Amino acid sequence: MQLYIGNKNYSSWSLRAWLMLEKNGIKFEEIKLPLATPAFYEALKAVTPSLKVPSIIDNDIHVWDSLAICEYINDVYLSGRAWPESMGQKTKARAVACEMHSGFGALRNEMPMNIRAKRSLTISDACKKDIARIEQIWAEQMKDYADEGGWLFGDWSIADAMFAPVVMRFQTYGIVVSSQARLYMDKVLSCSVLGKWIDEALQETDIVTIDEAGTELE
Amino acid sequence: MQLYIGNKNYSSWSLRAWLMLEKNGIKFEEIKLPLATPAFYEALKAVTPSLKVPSIIDNDIHVWDSLAICEYINDVYLSGRAWPESMGQKTKARAVACEMHSGFGALRNEMPMNIRAKRSLTISDACKKDIARIEQIWAEQMKDYADEGGWLFGDWSIADAMFAPVVMRFQTYGIVVSSQARLYMDKVLSCSVLGKWIDEALQETDIVTIDEAGTELE
Ligand SMILES: N[C@@H](CCC(=O)N[C@@H](CS)C(=O)NCC(=O)O)C(=O)O
Ligand SMILES: N[C@@H](CCC(=O)N[C@@H](CS)C(=O)NCC(=O)O)C(=O)O
Repeated sequence: MQLYIGNKNYSSWSLRAWLMLEKNGIKFEEIKLPLATPAFYEALKAVTPSLKVPSIIDNDIHVWDSLAICEYINDVYLSGRAWPESMGQKTKARAVACEMHSGFGALRNEMPMNIRAKRSLTISDACKKDIARIEQIWAEQMKDYADEGGWLFGDWSIADAMFAPVVMRFQTYGIVVSSQARLYMDKVLSCSVLGKWIDEALQETDIVTIDEAGTELE
Repeated sequence: MQLYIGNKNYSSWSLRAWLMLEKNGIKFEEIKLPLATPAFYEALKAVTPSLKVPSIIDNDIHVWDSLAICEYINDVYLSGRAWPESMGQKTKARAVACEMHSGFGALRNEMPMNIRAKRSLTISDACKKDIARIEQIWAEQMKDYADEGGWLFGDWSIADAMFAPVVMRFQTYGIVVSSQARLYMDKVLSCSVLGKWIDEALQETDIVTIDEAGTELE
């Protein structure tokens, strides 16, 4: 299996798919393409009609879109265990994952993932609303699961893949959350698999100007 | 089962969930809430933490987000048959559904669903790019399926629920597409279940100002 991703420092959607594979011990070849360069689109032409990363090739099956990749890996390699087992919890996990996938436009625009940065930001009311809703999701799940696995639904699930880039953003831009929600951020940030991605991001030197929001802190 | 939706004229995300239920003959009580009014948020408080429509209550299970609702209905009521049967086609259907769910921000902003309108629009390059990608998806699927069921993957699937609001937008704003892509639009627009939604939208009189883009055509 080949996984195509963008720069680790910036590519929030790529991080989701990469985590899904790494956390589940699935072997793959990583092909990193430099975002916002002609080489990026040239390489993706034969891989995905969306011309975006992440994208995987698994023999004759091509899958693009981070959530579709997670669902595919779950169906084909994990017998469904990357969603919670009970239908009630599985449904809720899908609801927050899909909500994350399709919404939060203000947060995405104003707080681009940029792992290297340590920045302060001026954010809009729409972005504050996005932050509040995410905080609410994390805090609500931690009420049930902080002491029972610590991931959003106890054991690690696709929902955690979907929210990892948001944790990175909150951390980088110093967003202060409630202590319940902070429990979740700490859980994510202490994950050694994510740590590997972060280390590699910190070694990158390419700059994608559009993702350099905010003012450098000290 | 209760389905909460917004105004039929405007609520593109609601249309997806409603179609999923109606097309599959699943019985539900429809609760229509007026978008952008205090009553909307008041009613949703007990229903969904996202405070958005669509949302369903199925006994003790609450599901929000249009894609999560489709997946839930498919899992619990349809034994999975709302995705194509083969893993290859199921994966592709999920990829285009998820791509639609998370992307196309320019199209969403500049071309809000407004079934009553007949408008011309000035659109940005980003929106043109969104239109081109959607056209490409439809045309590619019609190559295989125009004569084999006529939906994106032959038989009706969740992918068709996800693209129905886009067909409405293209129709309303007079977007001209290739003849292959047009085959798909005609298939969707000839669907009597969608016709029922359209009829009810045309009877509505509430105006949601933010969704009134473009210049009336006479
Ligand atoms: N819905 C897609 C979005 C993917 C996406 O937007 N990826 C960005 C990089 S993080 C990209 O490839 N951008 C290149 C472009 O838009 O030209 C997913 O979930 O994978
Ligand atoms: N990701 C959600 C988006 C739902 C959504 O944005 N719904 C709109 C109406 S079409 C809404 O409820 N807006 C009310 C608000 O944002 O305050 C889904 O797929 O259901």
